[in-house]
Amino acid sequence: MLENSSSSSQRLTVITCTAPVNIAVIKYWGKRDEELILPINSSLSVTLHQDQLKTTTTVACSRSFQEDRIWLNGKEEDINQPRLQSCLREIRRLARKRRSDDDPSNDISLSHRVHICSVNNFPTAAGLASSAAGYACLVYSLSRLFGVEGELSGVARQGSGSACRSMYGGFVQWKMGEREDGKDSLAEQVAAESHWPELRVLVLVVSAERKPVGSTSGMQTSVKTSQLLKHRADSVVPGRMEEMISAIQKRDFATFAELTMKDSNQFHATCLDTYPPIFYLNDISRRVISLVHRYNQHYQETRVAYTFDAGPNAVIYTLQEHVPEFVQAVRHFFPPETNGGEFVKGLSVDSASLSEELKRAIGMEPVPKGISYVISTQVGPGPCVVEEPNLHLLGPDGLPMKST
Amino acid sequence: MLENSSSSSQRLTVITCTAPVNIAVIKYWGKRDEELILPINSSLSVTLHQDQLKTTTTVACSRSFQEDRIWLNGKEEDINQPRLQSCLREIRRLARKRRSDDDPSNDISLSHRVHICSVNNFPTAAGLASSAAGYACLVYSLSRLFGVEGELSGVARQGSGSACRSMYGGFVQWKMGEREDGKDSLAEQVAAESHWPELRVLVLVVSAERKPVGSTSGMQTSVKTSQLLKHRADSVVPGRMEEMISAIQKRDFATFAELTMKDSNQFHATCLDTYPPIFYLNDISRRVISLVHRYNQHYQETRVAYTFDAGPNAVIYTLQEHVPEFVQAVRHFFPPETNGGEFVKGLSVDSASLSEELKRAIGMEPVPKGISYVISTQVGPGPCVVEEPNLHLLGPDGLPMKST
Repeated sequence: MLENSSSSSQRLTVITCTAPVNIAVIKYWGKRDEELILPINSSLSVTLHQDQLKTTTTVACSRSFQEDRIWLNGKEEDINQPRLQSCLREIRRLARKRRSDDDPSNDISLSHRVHICSVNNFPTAAGLASSAAGYACLVYSLSRLFGVEGELSGVARQGSGSACRSMYGGFVQWKMGEREDGKDSLAEQVAAESHWPELRVLVLVVSAERKPVGSTSGMQTSVKTSQLLKHRADSVVPGRMEEMISAIQKRDFATFAELTMKDSNQFHATCLDTYPPIFYLNDISRRVISLVHRYNQHYQETRVAYTFDAGPNAVIYTLQEHVPEFVQAVRHFFPPETNGGEFVKGLSVDSASLSEELKRAIGMEPVPKGISYVISTQVGPGPCVVEEPNLHLLGPDGLPMKST
Repeated sequence: MLENSSSSSQRLTVITCTAPVNIAVIKYWGKRDEELILPINSSLSVTLHQDQLKTTTTVACSRSFQEDRIWLNGKEEDINQPRLQSCLREIRRLARKRRSDDDPSNDISLSHRVHICSVNNFPTAAGLASSAAGYACLVYSLSRLFGVEGELSGVARQGSGSACRSMYGGFVQWKMGEREDGKDSLAEQVAAESHWPELRVLVLVVSAERKPVGSTSGMQTSVKTSQLLKHRADSVVPGRMEEMISAIQKRDFATFAELTMKDSNQFHATCLDTYPPIFYLNDISRRVISLVHRYNQHYQETRVAYTFDAGPNAVIYTLQEHVPEFVQAVRHFFPPETNGGEFVKGLSVDSASLSEELKRAIGMEPVPKGISYVISTQVGPGPCVVEEPNLHLLGPDGLPMKST
C-alpha cells in the first residue's frame, strides 16, 4: 500500500490487486434471489492462471476525493450501479464492524471516498466472464484498502454471482446455501492450484460478436419459463457436484471431462428450453463439439473436454500430453489467417503433426478462420496484491494514468 | 381394385393409395419398447394436405409372385427389414383373423406374395418425415388389398412410430398407452381437417444436407443419456397434451402456437442434453426462430409459430390472413436465388409488402439463399384410395412402371 503525499493535506492511500477468470464445469444458471444473488444450484469452477487472463484493479482513498468514482477499461462508469453499491456497502460494513470489534490499526477513514480503476488484459468481447474477475478484484482490492480480512466471497457474490468463485485459486465450488439471507451461499476451495499440474486449458475464441442475450436477463427468463431448468437444479446438479468433486480429488480426467461436457450441454439445453429460446452456441461451437467427440472417439478415450458459457467460445480442458496434437487438430480444421498474428497465445505449445488416420476419423470439412485464436493456459491462484508501485492504475492525483 | 388378367393363369390384384405427412406440435422422442415401437410420451400432430406432400403406394398380389418385393422411389429395397416385416406380418394376421371370423368375400389368398412400389412427391432430403407417410401408406394399401378394416394405426406404428398419426386427417394424437403389448398405443383424431380452415402451414426448406444423426438411433441415445428427456416425458408432456387439445378445440391460435414453439424447443433441448449431444438446428434454423419471435413481438401478438423435427427445416404454422406478409418477410430476410425457380411452391400466396417499421423491428442482416424454397400447404385428410387405374405404380407384370 502506497501512502502518497504529493500535497501535505491530500494523503492518498492506494493499492493494486489482480484477480483471475474462472470457468465453470458445473454451471451456474438461475437465481432464487435477484437482490442477494443467490443461485438455484451449486456450481464448480476451475480458476485460470493470471499469467494469461486477469483483471487488474487499483483502488485509492483520500480525504480530498469528493465522491466514489470508477473507471473500467479506460472509461468512467456509473458508480451508482446497484451491484457496485452492494460491494462498496458490504466492504465498508465489514470494515466498520472489524474496527469497532478490536482493531484500530488501519487508519483509512471510512468516510473517505474511493477511486477505482480496473482493466482486463483480455478483450471483453472474448466472451470470458470478465464480470467475475472484475468483481472479485474489486472486492479483494477494497478489502485490502480497508484492512478487511476473512470470508469475502459472499461480498463478491453480490457483485456478480460467479465472482465468488474467482476469490480462490484452483478448483472452487460455490455452495448454493439454504439461508434466506444468503450468509451460507459462499465459495470454497475444493483443491489447490497445485493439485493437478497436468491439467491444461485452451480458450478457443470463436468470434468477437457480442452475445445476443446477457446472462442476467437470460437466466431470469430461464427461471421463469424453463421446466427443465428447475428439474436440473433440483434433481441433477446435486449428484453431479458430488461426482465432480470426487473426480477432481482423484484426478480422474475421463470422469471430470465427461461431466464437464454433459453439464455444458445441459446448461445450453435449458437455454433452448427457455421461452423465447436463448442460443449461445453457433455453428462453429457445434463443430468444436463434434471435433472433440470424434477426437476422443478415435482414441477410445476421453482426452479432451469442451465447455461453453454464455457465448460461442469454447473452453477446452485436457492434459498436458495431449495439448500439442489437439491444438494441431484445431489448426487443421479451423485454418487460421496466414497473416493474422500468432494463433496460439499464452503458454507455449509444442508443434505436432496429425496422422492421416486421425484426420480421416475426424473427417470434417475445414472451416477457414472459424477460430480467431487460442489462449493456452492452466489452473492458477486466487487474487493477489501487486507489490510494484509503478503498476498502479491511478496516479498521485487519484485519476487514471494515461497508459490505462 | 383392379383385377388384371394379362395371362389367364396369372391374375393380378392391384391397389394404389396415398397417405399424408404429419408434423408434430407435441413431439415424439424416445421409445419405451424398441420392438413394438412404444413411446415414452404421447404426442400430437397436424396432418398436412396431400395436394402438396404425399406418399403414393401401389401394392399388388398374384399367385405368380415368387416372393414379397418392395421398390422405394424407383429402387428395389430389402423386404426383410424388420419393420417392413412387422407391418406385413400384422396385416396378414389381421386378414386371417377377419376371414376366420366371418367374411369369405375377399378372395385374395393370404399365401400370395405381394409387390410394393412407393414414391414420395417430395425430396427425402427435404427432411420431412417421409417414413411416417410411407409406412402409413403401406399399411393402408395392404389393408385394402387384404380387405382388412378397423383400427390400423397400431400396425403403422410398428413400421415407424409417427406413421400411426398419418393414418388420420386433421389433428391427431398418439396416445402412448400403458399396456406392455402396446395394444393401447394408438392414434386418434382430435379434430377433423375441416375444423380449423384458416390454419396454414409453410415448410421452409433450409438445406438438403443429410441429417447427421438418424432419429431411431438419436432417440435411443437420448433415452439412455438424457435426464431432462425423462423429466419431459413424465412430467411435462402430459399437461401439454391437455392444453394443446383444448387449444385446438377452441381454435385458440396464440396458445396453439406458443405450445408448439415451446415443445419444439424442448425436444431440441433434450437432443442437446443427450451424450454425445445431437444437433438438428443450424444457424439458419436459429435465424428463422429469431425472425418468428421478432415478428410476433412487433405485433404484440403470436401470429406465427415454428416447429423443427430431426433436421434444420422449419415448419411454420400461421393463419391464412398472415401468410402473405410472413412469406414476404422470409423472402426479404432470406433472399432467394434470382434464377432458382419458384420460391413458393404449393398453395398460392398473394404478394405483400413489408413496412419499414416491421423490417426495422426484425432488424436481421439478410442471408441470401438461407432458405431454398417454401412449400405452402394446409391441414388435410388421411390416407385415400386412388381410383384411376392409370395411376398405378406397378404394371400388369407386377413390376414398377418405367415412369416411377
